[in-house]
Amino acid sequence: MRASVLSDWLAQRLERGSGQPVYRQLHRLLQQAIHSRELPAGAKVPSSRLLAAELGIARNTVTQVYEQLVLEGYVTSATGRGTFVADTSPDEIVGAAEIGSIESVKTPRQLGSITGQSGLIATNSQTLPNADVLAGLPPPVAAVGADLRDGEGGSLILGVSQSLQSPQLHRPAARALSARGARLIAGAGVSKRQGGAFMPGVPDVSRFPARIWTRLHNKYWRTLRPDLLTYAPGGGLALLRHVLADYLRTSRSVRCTPEQIIITTGIHQSVDLAVRLLSDPGDTIWTEDPCYWGVRSVLHVSGLKPRPIAVDSEGINPSAADFAAPPPKLILVTPSHQYPLGMVMSLARRRTLLEYARQNQCWIIEDDYDSEFRYGSRPLASLQGLDTAGQVIYVGSFGKTLFPGLRVGYLVAPEPLAESFATASAELYREGQLLQQAVLAEFIAEGHFTSHIRKMRALYGQRRQAVLDAAARRYGEALPAMGGDAGLHVVMQLPEGSDDRAVAEAALARNIVVRPLSGYYSERERAGSGLLIGYACVPDEEIGPAFDMLGEAIDVTLPAFG
Amino acid sequence: MRASVLSDWLAQRLERGSGQPVYRQLHRLLQQAIHSRELPAGAKVPSSRLLAAELGIARNTVTQVYEQLVLEGYVTSATGRGTFVADTSPDEIVGAAEIGSIESVKTPRQLGSITGQSGLIATNSQTLPNADVLAGLPPPVAAVGADLRDGEGGSLILGVSQSLQSPQLHRPAARALSARGARLIAGAGVSKRQGGAFMPGVPDVSRFPARIWTRLHNKYWRTLRPDLLTYAPGGGLALLRHVLADYLRTSRSVRCTPEQIIITTGIHQSVDLAVRLLSDPGDTIWTEDPCYWGVRSVLHVSGLKPRPIAVDSEGINPSAADFAAPPPKLILVTPSHQYPLGMVMSLARRRTLLEYARQNQCWIIEDDYDSEFRYGSRPLASLQGLDTAGQVIYVGSFGKTLFPGLRVGYLVAPEPLAESFATASAELYREGQLLQQAVLAEFIAEGHFTSHIRKMRALYGQRRQAVLDAAARRYGEALPAMGGDAGLHVVMQLPEGSDDRAVAEAALARNIVVRPLSGYYSERERAGSGLLIGYACVPDEEIGPAFDMLGEAIDVTLPAFG
Repeated sequence: MRASVLSDWLAQRLERGSGQPVYRQLHRLLQQAIHSRELPAGAKVPSSRLLAAELGIARNTVTQVYEQLVLEGYVTSATGRGTFVADTSPDEIVGAAEIGSIESVKTPRQLGSITGQSGLIATNSQTLPNADVLAGLPPPVAAVGADLRDGEGGSLILGVSQSLQSPQLHRPAARALSARGARLIAGAGVSKRQGGAFMPGVPDVSRFPARIWTRLHNKYWRTLRPDLLTYAPGGGLALLRHVLADYLRTSRSVRCTPEQIIITTGIHQSVDLAVRLLSDPGDTIWTEDPCYWGVRSVLHVSGLKPRPIAVDSEGINPSAADFAAPPPKLILVTPSHQYPLGMVMSLARRRTLLEYARQNQCWIIEDDYDSEFRYGSRPLASLQGLDTAGQVIYVGSFGKTLFPGLRVGYLVAPEPLAESFATASAELYREGQLLQQAVLAEFIAEGHFTSHIRKMRALYGQRRQAVLDAAARRYGEALPAMGGDAGLHVVMQLPEGSDDRAVAEAALARNIVVRPLSGYYSERERAGSGLLIGYACVPDEEIGPAFDMLGEAIDVTLPAFG
Repeated sequence: MRASVLSDWLAQRLERGSGQPVYRQLHRLLQQAIHSRELPAGAKVPSSRLLAAELGIARNTVTQVYEQLVLEGYVTSATGRGTFVADTSPDEIVGAAEIGSIESVKTPRQLGSITGQSGLIATNSQTLPNADVLAGLPPPVAAVGADLRDGEGGSLILGVSQSLQSPQLHRPAARALSARGARLIAGAGVSKRQGGAFMPGVPDVSRFPARIWTRLHNKYWRTLRPDLLTYAPGGGLALLRHVLADYLRTSRSVRCTPEQIIITTGIHQSVDLAVRLLSDPGDTIWTEDPCYWGVRSVLHVSGLKPRPIAVDSEGINPSAADFAAPPPKLILVTPSHQYPLGMVMSLARRRTLLEYARQNQCWIIEDDYDSEFRYGSRPLASLQGLDTAGQVIYVGSFGKTLFPGLRVGYLVAPEPLAESFATASAELYREGQLLQQAVLAEFIAEGHFTSHIRKMRALYGQRRQAVLDAAARRYGEALPAMGGDAGLHVVMQLPEGSDDRAVAEAALARNIVVRPLSGYYSERERAGSGLLIGYACVPDEEIGPAFDMLGEAIDVTLPAFG
């Protein structure tokens, strides 16, 4: 396209009445002409004065568009010579291989003889090696780059056209998820539903004291506090760390100073942080079998090899073979309330575990899951509080006690590692949310947290009983409930060998969400059959009818009970 | 301690006037007596009736304490026989090794001959193998466990006392950070300061329209919306994903549907998610050299091997050797505004990079850092918008445009992978913060976002000019500024070979934060000397005086300029 042709081409396409600024239209049209090669590389574009005159628009508009195009690399501008379309064509890239050194590759024949194993190539910006060397390169060699040092050697890179691509070239795999990514997706346990009967693990957020929370929230927003709107210092807001240390010391017998507390976004991040700081890919971690699906995924993507350890009525129960195996780097347990089965780890087991870890220099991650919701007995002291070797990393969260969407959890690091944990959390996650942390700290300090827990404990205890009653009415003792006297779900046992996944699917078809127990196991031969029934988020009056629907699904799937 | 002795011991220690409930005191005292072995394992504790009478307290209180102790494993209760102190002493555990099978290990002599390589042992819950086999075990063997199957074989686990611990035992390393953990901490770039002159990367949050934000926030809290307080569905709030897709399409030429948008907590999480889904440990990633320190850490802990690629005035500039090496799995670039140097990636480079990635099946992560803050020209279109092969993962965040503590970022996944990205984000991070996402969506939809950016762009442009003016006044052209016409910092070049870290330290001693440019480089021989000077969060009137302090630090450290 010559300059006048370009003007015509543009004039035909500019839509003056369209409401779109001429600047934007002109910019887009010129890009388009360059992309389509109607304005080929090297072509001179009309001067801004000329183009403006031919299009009848302000010269300033054209100048601005040209400047933008220069910046974007579509055109280059040489003072006094004009503006030219840049060569933006990508190189023909086939593969890449390094071919000897210049020293040893001197003649075209030599070059030709090695192209069979060569790849390709250099970009526009690469300099070419000695022209003598390259003269008469055999035809398939399309381009050449070199890394010359001191004129006396270096690597030579050959480019070959697609037709010569040999099997020795790097042949990339199809673009897809990585192995760990594919495994993560295949094993994903996350549900698309986040509520309704009987979704386990979801608290009743409708009872949250929103008025109190909003009052505190507005107090902090009223006078803008820049220090609360920026990144969090490592470990989180000092005030919250203080309040939490007090709470954990008195309620959970955790031994800690505020400096040992690291605020996280929840159990997932807490475990991720501990795993990355304390283990390397290929290290073993003992996990309870069954255990929480989400944590399993976090461990897998960090390269850990879980060794699933059986649990019995006293909690984790390593076999002789487990003790005989090389010790793990990490041990992840839920002593207060085994997830998902609900039993409490006995004191004997706690002490054996602590002693084993001490002797074998393992770290223990204590997930103090649901410890606040015990309906019969008082909560047990934490494992961390029994430990004298500084080997326990205690983790907990406010997701179940306040509301899941809050995303506030915490980790208590062993004192000598507290600063490393704080640094790593800032380095890896670059957290913020300090204003929310301030609101939470005040919410706890004013006593609203414990009073909310007290209220919810009564409510959940009632709902738990309603589920147990409904189950007993329908099945007597045929389908016993496990799960101890705590938490936000019960586990209803199904007959050994029965297909709990099929039951869960039949329930879902009736709009009832239950999770099959077998899915929480790693070892198939160990897997019990049962259903996790979450009652916390189900209004009292819906529990009976919802259980009837569930019963229908059970009866249809397991006709022996029909 | 006999029963009556126990009563006396307890009576002496119960403080009735202390205000602490008797229940709690009794519970603690009994635990203490068991821990200290004053109540040894196997001892029978008095009946609740008897103890209540002797202490003059309600029987119900004693019953409850006993029940709690049973649950905690301190005592066991046998119906009709009474309550006994449990054996909670941990085993003496030295190490662990599996020793042949029962079949092949029959006599004490055989056992003795192998203890030299044996380890240890079983917990209280392990059953002992055939007593005949074990009779007369040599003295160092302290305990034995076995995994017997069908009485006809299985593994035998020997326990040996500490004294026999041989070098062949698993000898654990001292408990410490893992290799990746130690490297993370050693290389941590995070600053303890999050504001003040001239902290780079921190926007001015004091100008945030708090009143508008709070109004929207309160609207969502006024009528409690349980669906906004629970876990986020994979990908985040639908409304925000819609609003963002519109914004990114029009402002950044990103090609996307709302389904391709994944809401994250920021660049760190976006990169972490992409890396874990698309690469495996040991895979190579091309990073720009220099690049953002935080992302380097995220890559390292995920097991990636970064290959730092040089940049020049057109952005990333792979050498012939880079092209010749086996292609990377991932390529991480900042095309709009190279971090930290500030140049724009030219169109030729963009197309070469896209073509190279296409031919070699690499994924490109485009970090569209600071693209909103351009002071001269309009923002450039995204790399993602040029891509036709579905190989670009586009990431961005609201940290700089609104406020860092917000923790909202986004990722645009290639269409075929959008669902996997959404699932993985829910599975790995279990995110929430939907209410905040709703507020943000409305903030954008009502136009407050673009108007805030417009205001801040004017403000930052002014501050940027103030820094450049101060530098020019003091140093003329001796210390030129880089960083293009965009972003929240400029890079002031120092003379080649000068020690920018020493300058930064001297500045810090004067309460001025600048980051040494050399710290952003991976390859030492490539590292330029300079200072990152963040101006965004410095009030206009403080820029001059702060620069004078910085100048003092430069002059003291590099006397040639003094």
